[in-house]
Order: sequence, then structure tokens, then C-alpha cells
Amino acid sequence: MKARIDKFFLTETLYEYAKLVLFGAPFDSTTSFRPGARFASRVMRAESFGLETYSPYLDKDLSDAKFYDAGDLELTFGDTKQALSDIKAFAKKTLDDKKIPFLIGGEHLVSLPAIEAALDKYPDLRLIHFDAHTDLRDDYLGAKLSHATVIRRAYDLLGGGKIAQFGIRSGEKEEFVFGKEHTNLHPFNFDGLEERLKEFEGRPVYLTIDLDVLDPSVFPGTGTPEAGGVSFTELLNAAMLVLDKSKVVALDMVELSPHYDISGASTAVALKLLREMLIKLCM
Amino acid sequence: MKARIDKFFLTETLYEYAKLVLFGAPFDSTTSFRPGARFASRVMRAESFGLETYSPYLDKDLSDAKFYDAGDLELTFGDTKQALSDIKAFAKKTLDDKKIPFLIGGEHLVSLPAIEAALDKYPDLRLIHFDAHTDLRDDYLGAKLSHATVIRRAYDLLGGGKIAQFGIRSGEKEEFVFGKEHTNLHPFNFDGLEERLKEFEGRPVYLTIDLDVLDPSVFPGTGTPEAGGVSFTELLNAAMLVLDKSKVVALDMVELSPHYDISGASTAVALKLLREMLIKLCM
Amino acid sequence: MKARIDKFFLTETLYEYAKLVLFGAPFDSTTSFRPGARFASRVMRAESFGLETYSPYLDKDLSDAKFYDAGDLELTFGDTKQALSDIKAFAKKTLDDKKIPFLIGGEHLVSLPAIEAALDKYPDLRLIHFDAHTDLRDDYLGAKLSHATVIRRAYDLLGGGKIAQFGIRSGEKEEFVFGKEHTNLHPFNFDGLEERLKEFEGRPVYLTIDLDVLDPSVFPGTGTPEAGGVSFTELLNAAMLVLDKSKVVALDMVELSPHYDISGASTAVALKLLREMLIKLCM
Amino acid sequence: MKARIDKFFLTETLYEYAKLVLFGAPFDSTTSFRPGARFASRVMRAESFGLETYSPYLDKDLSDAKFYDAGDLELTFGDTKQALSDIKAFAKKTLDDKKIPFLIGGEHLVSLPAIEAALDKYPDLRLIHFDAHTDLRDDYLGAKLSHATVIRRAYDLLGGGKIAQFGIRSGEKEEFVFGKEHTNLHPFNFDGLEERLKEFEGRPVYLTIDLDVLDPSVFPGTGTPEAGGVSFTELLNAAMLVLDKSKVVALDMVELSPHYDISGASTAVALKLLREMLIKLCM
Amino acid sequence: MKARIDKFFLTETLYEYAKLVLFGAPFDSTTSFRPGARFASRVMRAESFGLETYSPYLDKDLSDAKFYDAGDLELTFGDTKQALSDIKAFAKKTLDDKKIPFLIGGEHLVSLPAIEAALDKYPDLRLIHFDAHTDLRDDYLGAKLSHATVIRRAYDLLGGGKIAQFGIRSGEKEEFVFGKEHTNLHPFNFDGLEERLKEFEGRPVYLTIDLDVLDPSVFPGTGTPEAGGVSFTELLNAAMLVLDKSKVVALDMVELSPHYDISGASTAVALKLLREMLIKLCM
Amino acid sequence: MKARIDKFFLTETLYEYAKLVLFGAPFDSTTSFRPGARFASRVMRAESFGLETYSPYLDKDLSDAKFYDAGDLELTFGDTKQALSDIKAFAKKTLDDKKIPFLIGGEHLVSLPAIEAALDKYPDLRLIHFDAHTDLRDDYLGAKLSHATVIRRAYDLLGGGKIAQFGIRSGEKEEFVFGKEHTNLHPFNFDGLEERLKEFEGRPVYLTIDLDVLDPSVFPGTGTPEAGGVSFTELLNAAMLVLDKSKVVALDMVELSPHYDISGASTAVALKLLREMLIKLCM
Repeated sequence: MKARIDKFFLTETLYEYAKLVLFGAPFDSTTSFRPGARFASRVMRAESFGLETYSPYLDKDLSDAKFYDAGDLELTFGDTKQALSDIKAFAKKTLDDKKIPFLIGGEHLVSLPAIEAALDKYPDLRLIHFDAHTDLRDDYLGAKLSHATVIRRAYDLLGGGKIAQFGIRSGEKEEFVFGKEHTNLHPFNFDGLEERLKEFEGRPVYLTIDLDVLDPSVFPGTGTPEAGGVSFTELLNAAMLVLDKSKVVALDMVELSPHYDISGASTAVALKLLREMLIKLCM
Repeated sequence: MKARIDKFFLTETLYEYAKLVLFGAPFDSTTSFRPGARFASRVMRAESFGLETYSPYLDKDLSDAKFYDAGDLELTFGDTKQALSDIKAFAKKTLDDKKIPFLIGGEHLVSLPAIEAALDKYPDLRLIHFDAHTDLRDDYLGAKLSHATVIRRAYDLLGGGKIAQFGIRSGEKEEFVFGKEHTNLHPFNFDGLEERLKEFEGRPVYLTIDLDVLDPSVFPGTGTPEAGGVSFTELLNAAMLVLDKSKVVALDMVELSPHYDISGASTAVALKLLREMLIKLCM
Repeated sequence: MKARIDKFFLTETLYEYAKLVLFGAPFDSTTSFRPGARFASRVMRAESFGLETYSPYLDKDLSDAKFYDAGDLELTFGDTKQALSDIKAFAKKTLDDKKIPFLIGGEHLVSLPAIEAALDKYPDLRLIHFDAHTDLRDDYLGAKLSHATVIRRAYDLLGGGKIAQFGIRSGEKEEFVFGKEHTNLHPFNFDGLEERLKEFEGRPVYLTIDLDVLDPSVFPGTGTPEAGGVSFTELLNAAMLVLDKSKVVALDMVELSPHYDISGASTAVALKLLREMLIKLCM
Repeated sequence: MKARIDKFFLTETLYEYAKLVLFGAPFDSTTSFRPGARFASRVMRAESFGLETYSPYLDKDLSDAKFYDAGDLELTFGDTKQALSDIKAFAKKTLDDKKIPFLIGGEHLVSLPAIEAALDKYPDLRLIHFDAHTDLRDDYLGAKLSHATVIRRAYDLLGGGKIAQFGIRSGEKEEFVFGKEHTNLHPFNFDGLEERLKEFEGRPVYLTIDLDVLDPSVFPGTGTPEAGGVSFTELLNAAMLVLDKSKVVALDMVELSPHYDISGASTAVALKLLREMLIKLCM
Repeated sequence: MKARIDKFFLTETLYEYAKLVLFGAPFDSTTSFRPGARFASRVMRAESFGLETYSPYLDKDLSDAKFYDAGDLELTFGDTKQALSDIKAFAKKTLDDKKIPFLIGGEHLVSLPAIEAALDKYPDLRLIHFDAHTDLRDDYLGAKLSHATVIRRAYDLLGGGKIAQFGIRSGEKEEFVFGKEHTNLHPFNFDGLEERLKEFEGRPVYLTIDLDVLDPSVFPGTGTPEAGGVSFTELLNAAMLVLDKSKVVALDMVELSPHYDISGASTAVALKLLREMLIKLCM
Repeated sequence: MKARIDKFFLTETLYEYAKLVLFGAPFDSTTSFRPGARFASRVMRAESFGLETYSPYLDKDLSDAKFYDAGDLELTFGDTKQALSDIKAFAKKTLDDKKIPFLIGGEHLVSLPAIEAALDKYPDLRLIHFDAHTDLRDDYLGAKLSHATVIRRAYDLLGGGKIAQFGIRSGEKEEFVFGKEHTNLHPFNFDGLEERLKEFEGRPVYLTIDLDVLDPSVFPGTGTPEAGGVSFTELLNAAMLVLDKSKVVALDMVELSPHYDISGASTAVALKLLREMLIKLCM
């Protein structure tokens, strides 16, 4: 009779044999509307026992996937720069060890340091962004580092023509204008994804998935639900397409705020998407 | 540093310059099943900060729309006649001032006095009704004034052939029979809306939207969820069609019961629909 | 002025005139993830007042349907065999009295004794199974009697080729392999249902509906939500097809866990499906 | 194997042998702040299975108490006069049949018709009132019949010096002044109860318990929680004292709003108090 | 018929006639455990309609108290320094206008800039601190500005012997040692308050009340509930004593996190304490 | 930057150096009323980060206590005998390794196998039992192994005069009679505890704490709340007394059902009690 401590899907792969490293970044200090994304990684880890490891979509089993669960980073709330610096350090180490970092947010700002770490290693990096929101503000109530500015900051780093956004249905007018000019902003759904993937072919890609790209009926557990989103199958297919057609070197999944959905369905949706991506990436 | 008091979307238009007046009617005394629609306007107002003012659907910004938020009426619970009379007085004043009254319920019965006020001013009024329920009972447990009788009472005022109902999927057999004969009842969805709008062309129209016309997956925050409803996009398109093709002189949105959806998604759906309608009506 | 005690839809049919007997089996002791299905029948009964008895789909009224509500069985928690034995005894009596037993779970294991009782009376029984999960494990953490093994146990009783499964999207690899060989497992949706019904034509059929076959957006109130499920209309149509095309002699509806959906929408979905089935079966 | 339908504490006493009749009045239409007391009797009935029938306080068992559960009255929401009239008719019948009516609210206004019925039979009636609120307004936003005016209306019926109020800690200044002059208002706790009971000795007494007299820590499940209330033991002792020292001919317990306390503790508190009172009254 | 916008207790006093200014600081970015204090001022304002304005404790009415509700400051999340600077500016203006600032948090860190503003005006300031936690850490995970360091930062500003802490029952060992040496830390309750007030007699006092000083049974709606706290009456009496015996020039009430108490009792407790303090301070 | 996996209070003591072993038994299959105790150990572990390790009561720090967190046992639901056998095996191993097993339930039945394991090693074992319920039934709906029979089963093992029960306020009449004769049942509170401890002096003691002995105001997060319980301080003092005055060789804490208290206060109460006991036992 052995007792057990929670790990994502009870994985027992050792760090040195892992192809990919999952880690949580429980941070939501810049969330302006409703906080709670800090709880995502812990709740996902605990609920991951409720999900089968076998995928009937891919006819493969997660127990054969080589990934390591590094647990959650211990981040300072209220000191945004320190928190981002700690995330970057962890992502960098993972990349240095030739593994794919897979960050579980937290609010969307946590993606920025992981993108930075990937860019340091892969100067030719492309960014694929699924989200309901543009996240292209230059500042938010004066703050340059915010969940609402994260893709703008990524643009500052990567430069024009290297970002593609999908599913976007909310933002300021200026953001949509900016997106049209600089970031290949595709509104409402995934139309145009295949074309972008062709353009990005052969380049290293960072994939950032803000789960609020999903319709709130499918994913109510998020801070800022936006009506009119994509279905689970649409998101799953789009994510699979990215993983199939491009060379993803780092990725993340953010903005699950589990306490806003007591049914647990939002967490279950996030976990199923995670399972499919892990199988695709680690086998 | 200025502190702020809640107003819908932080609007600062003065009453005299407004084309439309929003006001809340927090009343749900006749609700037979689960009360709570009284909280809708206050919660919507508070949550309206979480929604962008820009519409990517219409490529316009709500901050350019000229509407005024009059706040919530203070209504007596348990004395239905007094409450309805107070609502009518407010709607009448708005109409007298040549503005469009946009009532936020409350239960569906609050529409009745607003319809009356509009009819007083526009004797040739037509009524367009989106709902899951017929609301055509002649009485409900003996009461003539009830959320379940509101469209029947409106029929008593307007007369035959002047009402069109859409999305209906619940009611007593007698109500469906009555609807077939007297109110152009269109079950389940918006089929036939364009034809009706053509018929009503040039006439003043009152549009009443019971938000439970939406499928409960999209809008669980209501007192009587009815499976098998329309999607957010279907409702948005239908509402836009009415505003485009007819002369809406007064309107309402009722039956959000926000506490039954702790995710806030139902409130967010109501607010997005409201934003689109305000932009369409006030610019 | 008469006071009233809760019965499903306030039915007043006497047992002897009933064609069908509803009864609750509030048991969820083997639920491994999140318990709560024990509350389903009681909450459904209480909420059934909120649903109209008239069906606009079938243009018939439940008040004309001859069914009896026998209330809830009082079952021992923790002593699985005793509980199953009590359920079987009740189902047997109903069948002996030439009525259709309609069991409201509870977790899915409660179906097993009802299937046994039906098989005792109809040795040529076929089983139609709607579910997100295969439920085909041979044991679950060593236990042979479990929500996760119920269809495998049914297979042990009925034998090969007599079971058809639909909507399945979760399970272990071995279960899918087993299903392919022995149980006509149809993944994800209802494709192939008509063909199966033709094969089963003329045979007595037991229909078991695990409501988690529905997408969690439609039905979040369940213990193990699985993304990627069917819509309410798809399930309703599939159930109607089974009732139309085959001779259903017993049936059940299981795995509503009402407290996980405070909006009440999941309970409302279950009740509407129940209403349609009762009208179809008892008129 | 017998199935069962919910009754309070599973009582099986027949009406004709009962000394006391429990009945629910699920009405809360005049509630101005947060509705929900309509759900009290149904939830209490369902949860009553969780409570032992034996009282270690009294060393007696409720199963020996002769009371009948008449279920819930079906009341019209929004038509206050009709609802009150229906309650009065039921209470009158109970009294005519020489039984003690024990009403479970609902909001506090439901006490008024029961008091009226008792007064019709016992013209010398006294009223003992436990509550956080005075309920002595002459009108509430213009309405004469309201949860906030119920004791004032009772005063109109009974006259001066016949009412005693305890535990009161909230009201308008005018109400406290009125109470001091006309109703023996005892603020904050039960000081003075014994003296009042001596005064009322030999007279018929109606006891009305607004459960919000309890401190919100003990009883959070109510519409208007008021800090600074009495403990469970204090309330239990006070109620027992009244039942011991006076001739209670009718009584009620109101203002449990169960959905505001998901722990169920408020419902459990109400049920334990109910059990003790039933044992005291019916044995 | 006039519609209304939420203000605390519907106050209509103009700024220039007010003796005291209420304002909300909805900030909780440094909260390390469970965020949500940002919602306190808005929920309190909305719920303040449920509380009577008359105090039976003081036999006075809040409608005679001269205070102004300035609404909520709009603060940047994630940029702690900017937020604190904005709070200080507002508190300073209030003090410059010769009014008492009464800040409603937010997390406890928001007190710091208000204390600074008071100290700028009253160099001889004393601080009285009610709390479950010492808040005396020198840094928290490296951050100098945190809810857990706020009283230590206040000590840095005021110096030794000028702070008195009461009700403290949680902290690191080092904090208790520091408190014993530098801040007159009184553990568990209000013992010693009168003595401290005598020492502080004649000096300007800032009173900061972290509501989690209350026992969680009375006040569950807070981020970090600590068993073993004081009762409502004890806190009310202690606060009244401070206001009676010392010259309070500024004050605050922090750490209500309303969503953790769906009963609303915690909000009601905060509002009743607020009412009593406003009456005491403004009449 | 190191990431972390949840352990109780982040303890890092190795098993071999530990004096005491914490382990979770997430089992609640026999719970008849409201399940959920299975979630206690996981939620407690996750929330333990919110509690300071320093005790101001004992002036000691938990970080100096030598205990090991073994995680949660993986138990079969629905097969009670197997689950109990697994618990016994784990407790036995702990005792064989000369460590104190401290079991975190789960429902109360999980105590039985731990008591058995302790009795096997210490044949002269005494049992001290804090609870709201007698738990002395001989069977519950026919089941001998149930949360409601656990102390009766313990009596079968230990024999007369070796058990002392405190705080009891609920049960069947027969249980109270049995308790009076055989188990030193002390109703309502801890009166008599010192005397019993003197009697038990020098004997090995098993201490079982059903947390529902606490008043529901303090501890609403449990399956069967019983009004009229003890305060946190009373329980803490009683537990400290037992640990001070007797030789506790094994112990447990059961029946926290965390989802029934969304404020988290119940979990916090359990954790604070746990901290104090760990410090007392391991230093």
C-alpha cells in the first residue's frame, strides 16, 4: 500500500528522460477584473486524476509520453518584475536542458518571460496566439507589464510579421488597428491558420493559448468571459494543426480561473486539451 | 485622482443630450419558480467595466453612443400594481422627452408598463418578442398580472396580428393554440423574422428580449432554464436585424438572474448584447 | 386550499393504472471522482414543478401520460451488494406487474440490477447504452462492481453482440479494444444508431442513458465532465429514435449530480428529456 | 423494499390523530432585500432525514410525537392578498379541527393570516415575537402588507399591551419608539421573557419566531443577516420556556433562506429547534 | 419617480459639508493566499441599502451624520507603487480639506499610504491596529511592500512606541519578538486597550481595522481566516472605545473579501461596524 | 528557482527521522447524508501554505517538528472491507516503524482500522472520542461497517470501560443508553475529561476527533452539522489536555467536508488544530 502525492496525471518520468517540462506559474497580480488564475495549475494537477490517460482521438496513451511535472514556481505577488524574472529563469533552464517548457498560467502576462527565454535561444522565433482578447495595449492604466499588454510586449521583442493571432473578439479600436498592421490579427475564429503555418514553416514557434478563446458555454471558468467564442473541437483541431505543421519549441496555456466554474467542466476542458498536446509533443 | 461611482459602461452623457435612456426595474415579485432577476441591473452595471467599449462586429465604439444611465427605480415588492405604475411613469417621461426607453429587468412582467407607455404615444405599435416561453396565459394561479401572462396582457392592449414571437419552446398547450391564432408564434428559433419585419415596416416597434431565449449552455443565469435554445450569435443577429429593419421606439432585456451563474458568463452575454444594441441605436 | 407533497410532475396516476413506474436509486458509493449523483432523483422531483407538462416537440401533454412515481429507494451506502439487490427486487416487482421500470440514478452502477431484472424476464434482451465513458473495465482498483465496470458486467450477463454503445469518448485503451470486438462501440456521437436499431428490431431493449454523454456546456452537473460531447437536440433525437423503433422494456437515466450546477440547467435538461420520454412511452 | 416520498421527519401520523399540523407557506414576494425564504419548507423537509429523531436535551423521541405534515400550500406570487387569504383559510381549518397550526415560512408576512386565524378563535390572544427586526413599520415604500410591517399589522388587530418582542436589534427610530410605547419591545436578547410570560399566564399565545433573531454566525441562511444576535442555546431555551409556561395555540418559524448557506448549517439549526418544539408540544 | 445610483447608505451630504470622506481602494495585488478584497467596497456599497440607518446601540440615526462617499479609486493592478501613490494623494487631499479620510480596502497594504498622508499632517501620529496577523515582516518573498509587511513599514515611518496592536494571533516567531520589543503587541484580544488609550491621550490617532481580527464564525468572508478571534460585540466595543477616548484623524477597514461568504453575513458585519463608527465620528 | 509539489506545511523531514506520520484516507462511501469528506486531506494539504508555522499559543514553530507527510492512500470506493484493510496495513507499518500514525479522514469509519492496528500493538489501548454523534449503532440500514457504527465496532474490539466520549449531542435513544452503560458518554461538552485522563494514566491512548464536535458556526464544512457544539478554544484546550496528560500512540481527525464551506474557514480551523497537535506531539 503506497500513499501518493499529486503530480500531473501521476507522471513518473524522471527529469533527465523528459522531452517536455510542465510547470505552473501561479501569478495573477495584474489581473484587473477578477483574479483567480493563480489557482489553475494546482487545481488542474489535483483534478488530473479524473481524466483517462488514453486518447481515443489519437489512439495513444499519455502514460507513454515522456514529460516531467516540475510543480509550481513560488512567485512574489505584487512585485511583477521579480515574478517575471523567476519565470524566465526557469524556462531558460528547461530550454538549456534541451526540453520543451510548457507553462501553465496564471494570467496571460506570465507568457512574456517564457517567450523571452525562447527568443534568447531561438532568435528567429515565431509566435502563435489563440485568445479572445488582442492583448495589444501599449499600457494598461499606466502599467507597461499587464495581462492586457502581453502580446504588445512580445511584439516589441519579436518585431513585425512574426506574430499570428486567432479567435480575437475583444479589444480597443487601437488594438485592432495595430493588429491589422503588425500582427496578422485573425478575428473570431481560426480562419487563415493553415496559411500562417505555411509561412512559419521551418521556424521555431512559441504557441500561447489563452483559454478564454473558447466560448464561455464551454469554458466559463475564466476571469473575463467573452461571448461568441470557438468550440472545444475547433480549439483542439487548431492546436493539433499547429503541433503537426510547425516546430513548437515552447508553449503555454493560461487564464483558467477554476473557482468561477464549480462544475469543474472548465478544468476538465483544459486538462483534455493538455493531454492531447502532451501526447502529440512527447511521443 | 478621481474616485468613481458605478454607471453603465461609465457613460458620461448628460440626460438632455441622450438619444436613449437605460434604466433598471429590479422587480421579481411574481416570479413563481426561482427569484433573483431583481439583481440583474445592479450586477450588470457593476460588471460593465469588464467589457471593452469597442465592437469588433460593428467597428464602432460605445463611447461615441449618446445614452444616459438613469440608475434603478426603487420599486415596492409585493404590491405589483404600484410597481408597474412606477415603471410606466418613468417610461412615459422618457418618451415624452423624445428619448428611447431601454428597460433592464427584472422579471418579464416589468415589460408590460413600458409597452403601455409606448402604446400611449404610438397607437400603431407592434411588438417583437424573443423568449423561450409563450407568456400567453390568461392568468397564473389566479393572478392576471404575472411573468407568465405578460404577452397575453400585451395582446389585450395591442390586439390581434400586432405581435410576433420567436424562439418559443415552452408553454401550456392552450398558449401555443392561442399563439397560432393571434400572435404569430414562431417556435424554437428565428425562422420567419425577416418576413415579419417586412410586414411591420414603417410601424413603431417595441422589442422585448427575454434572455432565456438563449440556450442554457450560453445563459445559465436565469430563473427557468429551458433546454434547446438559440446561440449567442443567432440572438445577436436577430436583434441587429430588428434594429436595422424596423423603427424601434422602446425596448427591454429581462430575466437575467445573475446569482444562478457564478461564472459571470450570463451577465457578460447580456452586456455584450446590450453594447451592440446601444451602438446600433445611438449612433 | 390543499397542501401538497412533491411527486414527479405532480402525477396522480395510481400504481395499478400506470404503464410505467419511475423510481429513484440514490446511490453513489462507488463513484471514484466526485460523488453527488445520490441527490439527482430528489432534486429532479422538486424541480419538476418548474417544467411545463406540454411538449411542443410532440404536441402532447404529460398530464395524459400514465406513469407512477414510486419515490426513492432507501439504500445502504457502503454495502454495494445489498444496495444492488434492493434495486433488483424493486425493478423485478415492477416488471412482474407488467409495467416498465424507469430508474433514475444515482451513479451508473445502479443500472446493473435493473438490467438483470429485465434479463430475467426477457432472456433475449438487447442493451442500448449512451455515455461518454465505455464503462467496460473488468475491475476498478480491484472492485468488480463499480460505475466504471457496469457495461462489462452487463456484457458478462448478456453476451457478445447484444450491446450497442454510442457517444463514447473516454476510457482505457483496453476498453476501446474490447468494445470494438464485443459491444459495437460507436465513439463520439450517434452515428450508426439506425443500423443497430434495425438489427435489434423486434427484440426487447433496455436503454441506459448516462447523461454525461452530453457536452459539459449543456450538462455541467455531473461527476466527471468530458469535453467534446453531444448536444441536447442530438440526445433527444437519439432517444426518441430508440423509443420509436424498438421495444423498450426497461430504461434508466443516471449520473446527474445536481449540486455541481447551481444554475439548475443540468437538472432542467434531464427533466425535459424525461418528459419527452414519458410522453413517448406512456401514451 | 418500499420506496418513499419526503415528509418532515418521515412522520406517518394520520391527520385525524395529530395534535399539531405542520404546513409550509413558500411565499416571499414582499421581501425587499434578498428573496429565497420560499425555499425553506421544501429544503427543511428534504434535509429532515439527516437529523436524529431522539432529543438528548429532553430524553424523548420525535417518533412518539403526534403531528401531521400537510405539505406546502400552493401560493400565488405577486398577489399578496390572495396568498394571505389562502394561508388564513388553511390555518383556520386546522384550528377548527382542534389542532395547533405550525406554519413554516416563507417571509415574515405569512405570519399575519395565521395570527388572524388564531385571533378569530381566541379573541384574548397574546403574541410573543422573537426577531432581529421590529417589523413595526406602518408601511414599507407605500405597502401596508410587507415583511417589515407584519407586527404593526398584528398590533392593529390585537391592540396595545398584548405583544411582547425579544431579541430586536434593527429598525427605524420610529419603530423603536412605537415599540417602547405599545409592544413591550425588549432589545438584543431575551431579558424580561419570564416576566412577560407571567403576565400572559393562562391566555392563549401565538409564538412567532423569525429565525434571524439568531446571530449570523449561527444562522447565515437568511435574507437580512444582522450582527449581534443570540446563540442557538439561548433561542432554544427561550422557546422551551414559552412552551412550558404558556398555552401556545398556534406558532410559526420564518425567514430561513436556505440557499444563502450552502453548508446546510442554518437548515440544520432550524430543524433541531423544530424537533425540540414538536416534542414539547405533541407529547 | 426618481431612479438612483449606488452610494454608501444613500448619503446625500455634499463634499463641502462633510466631516468625513469614505473612499474605496479596491486593490489586492500583493495578497499571497486568496485574492478578492478588491471587491469589498463595491459590494459593501451595494449591500448598504439592506441596513437600517438607525442605531439602537447609540440611539442615533446615520442620516444625520455628515459624511461623503467619494466612490472607488481606479487603481493599477500589478504596479504596487503607483497604486499606493494614488491612494496617498487622495487621502492627502481629504486631510488638506480638513476632513477625516475613512478608507475601505482592499488588502491591508492600502493602509500604508493613508498612514503616510496622516503622518505628513500629524507628525506626532499614533497607530492603533486591530488584526489577526502581526503584519510585521520585514519583507515577504523579497517584497518590502506587502499585506504582510504593512505594520512593519508603518513602524519604519512612525518609530518605536507609537503603535499598539490588538487581537493578534498569527505571525512568524520573529514578528512576535519584534512586536514585543517595538509595537506593544497584545495577542488574542483587546486586553490592555484602555491603558494604551490613556498613553495616547491627546495625540492624533490613526485606527486601522483588519476585519480578520474577528473570529471566522462571525466573519468568514476574508482571505486568510484565523480561528480563535474576537466576537462582533468585542470588536464593536473596542472600536467605540477608541473613538470615544482618542482623537482619530484618519482610519480604515480592510480585508473583507465578500465572495468567500455567499451568505452576505460578513459584509453585513462590516457595514454595521461602519455605521456605528460613522455615527460616532460625524455627529 | 525551485518549483514545488504540495506537502503538508511544506515539511521536508525524511520518513526515517520522523516521529509521526501524517497520511490521508480519502474515503466516504458509507456516508449516508452528504458525501465529501474524501476531499479533506487534499484540500488541507493545499491550504496548509496559508497557515503560519509558528504557534503563538505554544511559542514554538512547526518547522522544528519531526513529522512526515506520506500523502493519500489510494482507496477503492464501494468496497468498504478492502479500503479498511488498506488503511490498517498502512497504520500497522507506521506503528511497526515506531512512529505515531496520524490519519486524516475521510468519514469516521476510517478510524476503525487505525484503532485495530493500534490495538494489535498495544493490547491495553484506551480510546478517547470527541464527536457530536455517538456513533454507537450496532448496524446502519443493515450495514455493520458504517460511519454511524464506528465506535460500537471499536467497543467490540476494546471492550467495556475503555472508551470515553465527549461533546456528544446526537444519536438514537438506544445509543445514549448503551453509552451510559458501556462507554463513559459525556454529552454536549468536555466536562469530565480530566477525570477520565487520570483513569487512563499510563495507558496507551488512541485519540479520535470527529471535527463535527465543533459548533457549526465555527465548522460548517461537514456532512452533518449539529447545532449546539463546542467552540474552537474548547476543542483546542481539550486536545492539548489529552496530549499533555496521556500517552497518545495513534490519532486521527475526520469528517471535514471542505466543499460545504467555501469560505475555507473550516479547513483553516482543522489546520490550526493540526498544527498545534503536531507541535505538541513532535517536539
